[in-house]
Amino acid sequence: MAPIFTESKKIDTYARTGVLHTRAGDVLTPTFMPDGTRGAVKGLTPQQVINTGVEVVLANTYHLHLNPGEQIIKKLGGLHKFANRRGPMLTDSGGFQVFSLDSHAKVTEEGVRFKDPINGDIRMITPEKSMQIQLDLGADMIVAFDHLIGLKDAKPEDVKDAFDRTHRWLERCIVEFKRLTNSMKDRPLLFGVVQGGLDIQLRKKSLGIIQASDVDGIAIGGLSVGETREEMAIVLEALAPLYDPERPRFLLGVGTPEDLRIAVENGIDMLDCVLPTRNARHSSVWGTNDVRITLTNEKYKEDKDPIEVGCDCYTSANGFSRAFLRHQFKSGDPLAGTLASIHNLRYMMRICEGYRLFTAPATIS
Amino acid sequence: MAPIFTESKKIDTYARTGVLHTRAGDVLTPTFMPDGTRGAVKGLTPQQVINTGVEVVLANTYHLHLNPGEQIIKKLGGLHKFANRRGPMLTDSGGFQVFSLDSHAKVTEEGVRFKDPINGDIRMITPEKSMQIQLDLGADMIVAFDHLIGLKDAKPEDVKDAFDRTHRWLERCIVEFKRLTNSMKDRPLLFGVVQGGLDIQLRKKSLGIIQASDVDGIAIGGLSVGETREEMAIVLEALAPLYDPERPRFLLGVGTPEDLRIAVENGIDMLDCVLPTRNARHSSVWGTNDVRITLTNEKYKEDKDPIEVGCDCYTSANGFSRAFLRHQFKSGDPLAGTLASIHNLRYMMRICEGYRLFTAPATIS
Repeated sequence: MAPIFTESKKIDTYARTGVLHTRAGDVLTPTFMPDGTRGAVKGLTPQQVINTGVEVVLANTYHLHLNPGEQIIKKLGGLHKFANRRGPMLTDSGGFQVFSLDSHAKVTEEGVRFKDPINGDIRMITPEKSMQIQLDLGADMIVAFDHLIGLKDAKPEDVKDAFDRTHRWLERCIVEFKRLTNSMKDRPLLFGVVQGGLDIQLRKKSLGIIQASDVDGIAIGGLSVGETREEMAIVLEALAPLYDPERPRFLLGVGTPEDLRIAVENGIDMLDCVLPTRNARHSSVWGTNDVRITLTNEKYKEDKDPIEVGCDCYTSANGFSRAFLRHQFKSGDPLAGTLASIHNLRYMMRICEGYRLFTAPATIS
Repeated sequence: MAPIFTESKKIDTYARTGVLHTRAGDVLTPTFMPDGTRGAVKGLTPQQVINTGVEVVLANTYHLHLNPGEQIIKKLGGLHKFANRRGPMLTDSGGFQVFSLDSHAKVTEEGVRFKDPINGDIRMITPEKSMQIQLDLGADMIVAFDHLIGLKDAKPEDVKDAFDRTHRWLERCIVEFKRLTNSMKDRPLLFGVVQGGLDIQLRKKSLGIIQASDVDGIAIGGLSVGETREEMAIVLEALAPLYDPERPRFLLGVGTPEDLRIAVENGIDMLDCVLPTRNARHSSVWGTNDVRITLTNEKYKEDKDPIEVGCDCYTSANGFSRAFLRHQFKSGDPLAGTLASIHNLRYMMRICEGYRLFTAPATIS
């Protein structure tokens, strides 16, 4: 089999740049992947997404399973055709949404039972079902179904329980994944998920188990779910020396500029988060040095400057002023969210591209 | 002075194609002008607007006067710079919104007194004030302040009263316009407004008065305000033989495909309406033969077709399916409104461009 990840160069102790090889094309890393929750990045055309430098779009299995349903998307030719996306797509396992959106979600060894928020139907996602849904959706990278728990006030026995179940479920995911992809010429990549809460020993053990499994990539789950940035950093630092170099490392659901840097400098290759686009739709954007700018603020009423002088995003480079964006947000024009999202995504990609600049050509590394 | 309008060719008895010359560039007619109510077409970047073939964007004086205010827009460099619009812009007089949005708006000979819907302040727009606001906004074409009344159940004496006042106000508009543009090197174009309700004799008389005035263009106001399509057509047919050829004719606030054809075939060069984009944001688009398609309809759940097979708009040409658009509308993703608006605008422009195809080169006409 062709390599999944080609490391181009180590930047310092753990940070690295490289190329992730997927059936939908190569991806330069590190890379930030926006959440196209319901199949597409909210308010942006596929072309606008590409123009920010984004190379992978993530779609949420949970939301698409509920609506319009993976069978309809499959009939319509799969996620790429459905959302008119050229280039790699990734789906998450559905686990995060099940746990975070239904406080009554019930975990058994079989899977997770939850209530459909639209019609109240009782539904169930199992490891096998998650694989089936994701393969029906047709993403190029998919994630094993894991047992996620909130880290704030989590009891050690609950963390351990989720930890063990995640590994048992991973085995079931791998079996089902192989069964379903056996006859595929060009199969998607499967990521196993490292769990273990803030317990460093559990985390290291989990990583060992995942790396010993037949998965293509390593996902770090269960972070950015209530813990502090320092707590997250300690986990990432503990794992950084332990990754094998051949597989991509994906930090799930993490997405401020600060977190992105911490992650990359601890060996992470790819991250996804809804935050840059969700914040943008609520008028919050990043300026130079990660300064948070709330565009609806009165003080921008006559501000002629773009969001960030020197940014090469469509919004800033074309000179849309803070005053105009403020006016658009105040008027409820969705164009404001689009323009702000474009900037925030470009901001994240510029950080990623900044790391890539340190790359020497692969041949001389 | 350079000509304002160059007629290229008569298509049949009254329909014509031509070139409207503005300080921001030439406009091929007939042309449809979307309403950028608050300075920009909702949900569309300026580039997306241009890509539909739209050549003029209209902005609403009333809305921009209230928010952010013409002084702020002037400080920010005018409407074009504010909204990042390259190409001609037109502002309306503010009259239509004053009358339609404040049922207690009070007309005196001086002007119209109304309540600011945001803070309840009493405000007044006079003919002079309308000129001042529009010139501060910096549009390339502006409209005289007229007295508009609803046509349904309008008493003849009210129609006559509004008719007379419109002409008295026009004189005041012209005086103020000249005073303010006197020293301008490249002044905007002023449109006078024909009123008279459904009374054909009043309409003809009004057109005579407007054409005898020192205005650059003829606007037909007070239609599409409650009358039937047939009633509107009768007025347009009555005026069609009476226009002088050197001036552009602008039908205010009219905007279905059917109305566009009736207007153009009765000598109208330009029309504006919020309808194509507003309908689109509410999931209603036009298909072949003006068929109204409501994209949220259950029957499009698995429909792989684009909105209109063969349409060259971004949305249809790129194959965004009705099923995808339905899903996006159901999910509340503003991208749906953007993609639908792009189609509806292109649909209107294709009708306009269809008429232009009948044009022979100006030199041999």
